Amino acid sequence: MESSDLMAPVDKPMADREAHAPDAFNHQPKIVLDGEGPLLLDSGVSLAPLTITYQAYGELNAHKSNAILVCHALTGDQYVGGVHPVTGRPGWWDNVVGPGRPLDTDRYFVLCANVLGGCMGSLGPQEGDPKTGKPYALSFPVVTIGDMVRAQARLLDHLGVEQLFCVIGGSMGGMQALEWASRYPERVFSAVPIAAAARHTAQNIAFHEVGRQAIMSDPDWCGGDYLSQGKRPRQGLAVARMAAHITYLSDLAFHRKFGRLLQDSREITYGFDAEFQVESYLRHQGSAFVDRFDANSYLYITRAMDYFDLAAEHDGVLSKSFHDTPVRFCVIAFTSDWLFPTTESQSVVRALNANAANVSFCEIETDKGHDSFLLDEPEFFDVLNGFLRGAAKHRGLI
Amino acid sequence: MESSDLMAPVDKPMADREAHAPDAFNHQPKIVLDGEGPLLLDSGVSLAPLTITYQAYGELNAHKSNAILVCHALTGDQYVGGVHPVTGRPGWWDNVVGPGRPLDTDRYFVLCANVLGGCMGSLGPQEGDPKTGKPYALSFPVVTIGDMVRAQARLLDHLGVEQLFCVIGGSMGGMQALEWASRYPERVFSAVPIAAAARHTAQNIAFHEVGRQAIMSDPDWCGGDYLSQGKRPRQGLAVARMAAHITYLSDLAFHRKFGRLLQDSREITYGFDAEFQVESYLRHQGSAFVDRFDANSYLYITRAMDYFDLAAEHDGVLSKSFHDTPVRFCVIAFTSDWLFPTTESQSVVRALNANAANVSFCEIETDKGHDSFLLDEPEFFDVLNGFLRGAAKHRGLI
Repeated sequence: MESSDLMAPVDKPMADREAHAPDAFNHQPKIVLDGEGPLLLDSGVSLAPLTITYQAYGELNAHKSNAILVCHALTGDQYVGGVHPVTGRPGWWDNVVGPGRPLDTDRYFVLCANVLGGCMGSLGPQEGDPKTGKPYALSFPVVTIGDMVRAQARLLDHLGVEQLFCVIGGSMGGMQALEWASRYPERVFSAVPIAAAARHTAQNIAFHEVGRQAIMSDPDWCGGDYLSQGKRPRQGLAVARMAAHITYLSDLAFHRKFGRLLQDSREITYGFDAEFQVESYLRHQGSAFVDRFDANSYLYITRAMDYFDLAAEHDGVLSKSFHDTPVRFCVIAFTSDWLFPTTESQSVVRALNANAANVSFCEIETDKGHDSFLLDEPEFFDVLNGFLRGAAKHRGLI
Repeated sequence: MESSDLMAPVDKPMADREAHAPDAFNHQPKIVLDGEGPLLLDSGVSLAPLTITYQAYGELNAHKSNAILVCHALTGDQYVGGVHPVTGRPGWWDNVVGPGRPLDTDRYFVLCANVLGGCMGSLGPQEGDPKTGKPYALSFPVVTIGDMVRAQARLLDHLGVEQLFCVIGGSMGGMQALEWASRYPERVFSAVPIAAAARHTAQNIAFHEVGRQAIMSDPDWCGGDYLSQGKRPRQGLAVARMAAHITYLSDLAFHRKFGRLLQDSREITYGFDAEFQVESYLRHQGSAFVDRFDANSYLYITRAMDYFDLAAEHDGVLSKSFHDTPVRFCVIAFTSDWLFPTTESQSVVRALNANAANVSFCEIETDKGHDSFLLDEPEFFDVLNGFLRGAAKHRGLI
């Protein structure tokens, strides 16, 4: 759910990490996809024209069999590697995507598209409504994880990629990976849902609702119409981010990094300034986020996650979502992830086992919480490397 | 941290529970304590006059040896039993305090005072500053758990109670119980800290900071001066409450009660109304809270909890906080409490063991989370009953 640039204070500072210069990749400029006709959404609404922005790294091979689709999380975007054009920092999965890295761009063609409803160029509430010329704002239709995946499928059609070698993602990205494998099993050779779930839990819906209420009760939200009125609900979005950010880490991670340390090692001042380091850190998370994210997009994407319930589309039986699936799965969870706990991944694995599917499951021991998938976790990288190498052999890529 | 009236939808509806009519108790009207000279706070500021409101249930015996001080949690107040004058619902611990209940008012004199900094009559930011005649607002000094306990000690002086038979409380109430036992060991015969900790963790400080930021970014907060300006930061306080409320329950409790059920059993509407029952529930928690609580009090009391660190006053060594303590302890934790997890209670127990103190420790198996201490948990009641009965024998009360 996290953009790696904001994770810096908890783990290795990203600014200290050498970023690949953009030209180290086969860096594609922003590309707009449209003209394939209206996209029919789960809500019944049709959207046209469909604009999807994406980034690509590496080369598509002659058979178009080496494409990996990376699906980003709630506040992520298409800039997985290289330098992010807004923040100037490394892409959110720069430690995973690149030459010699688990998603090896010397071998694979790595794609990542900004999700439908997002705010980095893909069609979303901040884009202009062709009917009015003004930003859609709340007139943008509510989208689902299924809609996001349908839009990505259009992108693959456009690129001529019939089958993905792999679809991979963490958190909401993992939800998309599951949706992909369920909806288009013939188009997915392998799938890696990480720190994910086949449905959003009540507690997670509750946390999202807190964030939405924080945004919508900011007067500068203007009933969603802030862009037209030259305003932005900065305070509300920052509070939403702060609340969410806590859920991305763990009690132990907070303790290890901050404990009860005071900011600037001062004495207690008995006031409401950011007295503890953890407060200062959290305030920074809030304010930095506001500079790069759109509040309405936050509403739409959290809502898409809330609606996600793969079993619901199959009579409430999750195993039916993967009926006779040919996809090879690697399901990954982290021990200290309390937002998408291991039990949720286990439900997915059980549903796959009920289909005698090809699935490996790995729970990585770490105290870094949900956002572990964004951090340097050697065991996690080993699992990714091993699974992708094995799948690549089966696919005839190596 | 929770007022029982708002817990209704998760457990037994409190409205269905027969409340004791006020006259079933030796119900004392609101009493104001003052005129004992300035109270010197941890911050160095002196407060005068000190106004403390409290409720008492049962009769103080001739030896004044049967007094139990109940310490309330963040959003609680002095109305542990009977009918709450603002909400019209049973007091927040009505299931624990009363004739034949664990805190048996036929046997004990049960006291509960609104904490210093609170908003139910005790001196706090919404009370009038005698110097200006206007509400203190942010000119009220920041108080600590230690200050709250000092104020309670004044109340006992006033009542002529030299030693408490027991000091008991959950969450912040448990912090106070620990502070009491540490600061005034000779005045405490027994102590029952429940779902508590000897320090506030970084993650908990983070959650509090989210709530404070939500309040302070509400324009109707007016820099804290909302009472003078005839406003109230309703939205900000509601968001703060919603975020906090999630932390009082557990993932399983949310799942058991709400799952992914839709409000009114309607079809999915693809919108931002309260679509899921859990959203509607949470919004209700927020709005109901605003009707009974003061936003600035919320700032002050959360800050007092953040500052709590019993070991810090003793060279960082928690065991020194209980040096040769004569107090009998019963430390209680709940398995699913992730806000004040069992490990925090265990730290307290270890510190007591290092003093060869008289301590029993009990971890209650429940999936109801932090707020279990407010709910009908038979095993919890059995532990309370057993410990208090045993202590009462030692004290010569039975």
